Amino acid sequence: MNVAILAIGNEVLSGKTINTNSAFIAKQVEQLGGKVTHQQVVPDLEDEIVRGLEIAYTYADLVITIGGLGPTVDDLSREGVAKYFKTELVYDEEIYEGICAYFRRSNREIPNNNHRQAYKFKEGLVLPNNNGTAPGLFLKQDNKSVFLLPGPPAELELMFSESVRPYFIDQIKERKISNSYRLCGIGESYAEEMILHLYERYPHLNIAPYCAPDKVDYIVSTVDAYEEDLRAFDEEFKEIMKDYYIGDQNTDLATEVVRLLNEKQLKIATAESCSGGLLSSTLVNVSGASSVFLEGIVTYSYESKLNRLNIDVNRLMEFGAVSEEIAHDMAFNLEKLTGADITVGVTGIAGPGGGSELKPVGLVYIAINVCGQIFLKSYIFNGNREKIRQRTVAEALYWLHHYIKAL
Amino acid sequence: MNVAILAIGNEVLSGKTINTNSAFIAKQVEQLGGKVTHQQVVPDLEDEIVRGLEIAYTYADLVITIGGLGPTVDDLSREGVAKYFKTELVYDEEIYEGICAYFRRSNREIPNNNHRQAYKFKEGLVLPNNNGTAPGLFLKQDNKSVFLLPGPPAELELMFSESVRPYFIDQIKERKISNSYRLCGIGESYAEEMILHLYERYPHLNIAPYCAPDKVDYIVSTVDAYEEDLRAFDEEFKEIMKDYYIGDQNTDLATEVVRLLNEKQLKIATAESCSGGLLSSTLVNVSGASSVFLEGIVTYSYESKLNRLNIDVNRLMEFGAVSEEIAHDMAFNLEKLTGADITVGVTGIAGPGGGSELKPVGLVYIAINVCGQIFLKSYIFNGNREKIRQRTVAEALYWLHHYIKAL
Repeated sequence: MNVAILAIGNEVLSGKTINTNSAFIAKQVEQLGGKVTHQQVVPDLEDEIVRGLEIAYTYADLVITIGGLGPTVDDLSREGVAKYFKTELVYDEEIYEGICAYFRRSNREIPNNNHRQAYKFKEGLVLPNNNGTAPGLFLKQDNKSVFLLPGPPAELELMFSESVRPYFIDQIKERKISNSYRLCGIGESYAEEMILHLYERYPHLNIAPYCAPDKVDYIVSTVDAYEEDLRAFDEEFKEIMKDYYIGDQNTDLATEVVRLLNEKQLKIATAESCSGGLLSSTLVNVSGASSVFLEGIVTYSYESKLNRLNIDVNRLMEFGAVSEEIAHDMAFNLEKLTGADITVGVTGIAGPGGGSELKPVGLVYIAINVCGQIFLKSYIFNGNREKIRQRTVAEALYWLHHYIKAL
Repeated sequence: MNVAILAIGNEVLSGKTINTNSAFIAKQVEQLGGKVTHQQVVPDLEDEIVRGLEIAYTYADLVITIGGLGPTVDDLSREGVAKYFKTELVYDEEIYEGICAYFRRSNREIPNNNHRQAYKFKEGLVLPNNNGTAPGLFLKQDNKSVFLLPGPPAELELMFSESVRPYFIDQIKERKISNSYRLCGIGESYAEEMILHLYERYPHLNIAPYCAPDKVDYIVSTVDAYEEDLRAFDEEFKEIMKDYYIGDQNTDLATEVVRLLNEKQLKIATAESCSGGLLSSTLVNVSGASSVFLEGIVTYSYESKLNRLNIDVNRLMEFGAVSEEIAHDMAFNLEKLTGADITVGVTGIAGPGGGSELKPVGLVYIAINVCGQIFLKSYIFNGNREKIRQRTVAEALYWLHHYIKAL
């Protein structure tokens, strides 16, 4: 099923707002087995909306519009679509009641202009908005259909999954099936090399890698008929990637680490230098971290390494603050101090200053103490200060996950 | 000058890549005094590019295309534009030499398919690519012009500022001028109320607020003729917003705090509970933080508050970990421990669990010790765990900036 996307709004057209909504919808449509054939952005003007629809319907029989459903006079999607389809908008008391209920729930006064949002197409459907006030709308005339979705991403995304997705599943007979895999601790090109032979072995599967600085996701899809292939691929892929596979594309590594710590009733503490608290902050951001995270120390200065972590001043002088030995001592001493089962020591040079030939910018040491056994990792990361710090935390989380899982 | 943007590429069309390039170009065009009247995304097919151009030229005389300039057979922008304009592509030895030089600089072999990128329009211009291999192209026939820019954002952005921007400045006679303002520590609606009268007083200025969780930016623009209005507005706005204005839209609050600390030769240390190291991490992310940031302690558990910060156990029991008193003690004791001039204590309930009627989720206390004088702030933030933690750090940075600036 072909789909054309029509985003409506001056904010998007003028670049103030990045058009993440169109990407979201396109991705969903493709995952559901549809095909996006055209995308447009047009201004908040009734006639421009009509013109945009005329173009869109030369590309597809189903158009999804985004935005322009708000309460202000700028919000003209309803009017534009009605004009294009030569149909009428009618006031719907029930919609208005729903909007009022939304405001009452959040203890807010009901602004007068919200009446505008209570109009629907005479022959169309209303799509409930469970994250805001503006309901979505659906209209079908002859072979042309249109979904009108609201602009705020949280509202659009929920409405898509509640109201648009079922429509697709119903319309598309040859169902698409897919698996997703999240890999950590491995780069895209190395991952590709490891599974190159799978591309040939499974010609009916669409194998697509998506690469981010801290992970590689694979989305593998096909149609119903090749379900057996997908199953066989799944088994083989997971075996090849067993050191890197952490779950499907919704898996968050920090969440997994906290979950494993909870499951195994272990406590963790962190000592960071170059990462400056980014590791502790990433762990603490996981809801439920309080039952496993004891404390973090950001020993950024020499004094703090001596005073807070009791690092031996002679070793600090001998090996330097950025060294395998000091990373080791940070993790080791932190265990003595806190009694945590798992402790991490991180030290490195995030740059742009502070590098030398022997110890360049990007040099990072990570020590992970797992119940008394200390594992040491060293890296030279590329990139700017922020990227080096992010990569550092990604690697620390990867090894934490790796070792804790093995316990 | 009206501009239509035509992004070319299956990756963008299918939602795998978010169309940040179109937003970048639109924003730049508008800042230069142009107007974006239409945006499209079309697939990597020659005839679809021609069709997209036909539509685009009904919206504007200048079209900017994005992507499809790479070396592979999918990259068909050159061919599509040539077909639309009924013109010829010619091989250009000089372009090829430039591509080879790029590969040599990065010590890489020159792939064979890069010959494709050495074609230009017979009558057009070549735009140098100083961040990659594919040069951009420009073509003008009668009243229709087209810029072809490459898809990788770093290449596109540099090429825009080097080759497209001068074209606009040359073409647009009535030049646009603008100021930007970044406000912290104030919400959008409150800010709007404070300057409502300026909208009326300066009818020739375009006053546009942009709101983010931790800041409100104002971009105020007009044309040359109203330069005096812009100057008068600038003075008045800064006076009204003196408690919130931190600089233009490129100002980063953490960077400002580190800069002020450096300037005044002050040292800082942080003690965090709910924010979990996000404050220290945000400060440490600023290059040059090492000369002012001594250490951070993430006292997430009771034990760590007692052991690491010497919090009095009786006060901890009496007031609870999340209390003004404990925030105070965290900042106070941290000064004793570290000797830092500025110390911060942060404690709160980031949720989703842990709230009560008396101490709801979102309750946060921040204590800022400025050379011995302690200032206390309390908040009840809305939102999820991540948002509450972000707001906490934004407020801590705002008050740090406020107090350090006043020293």
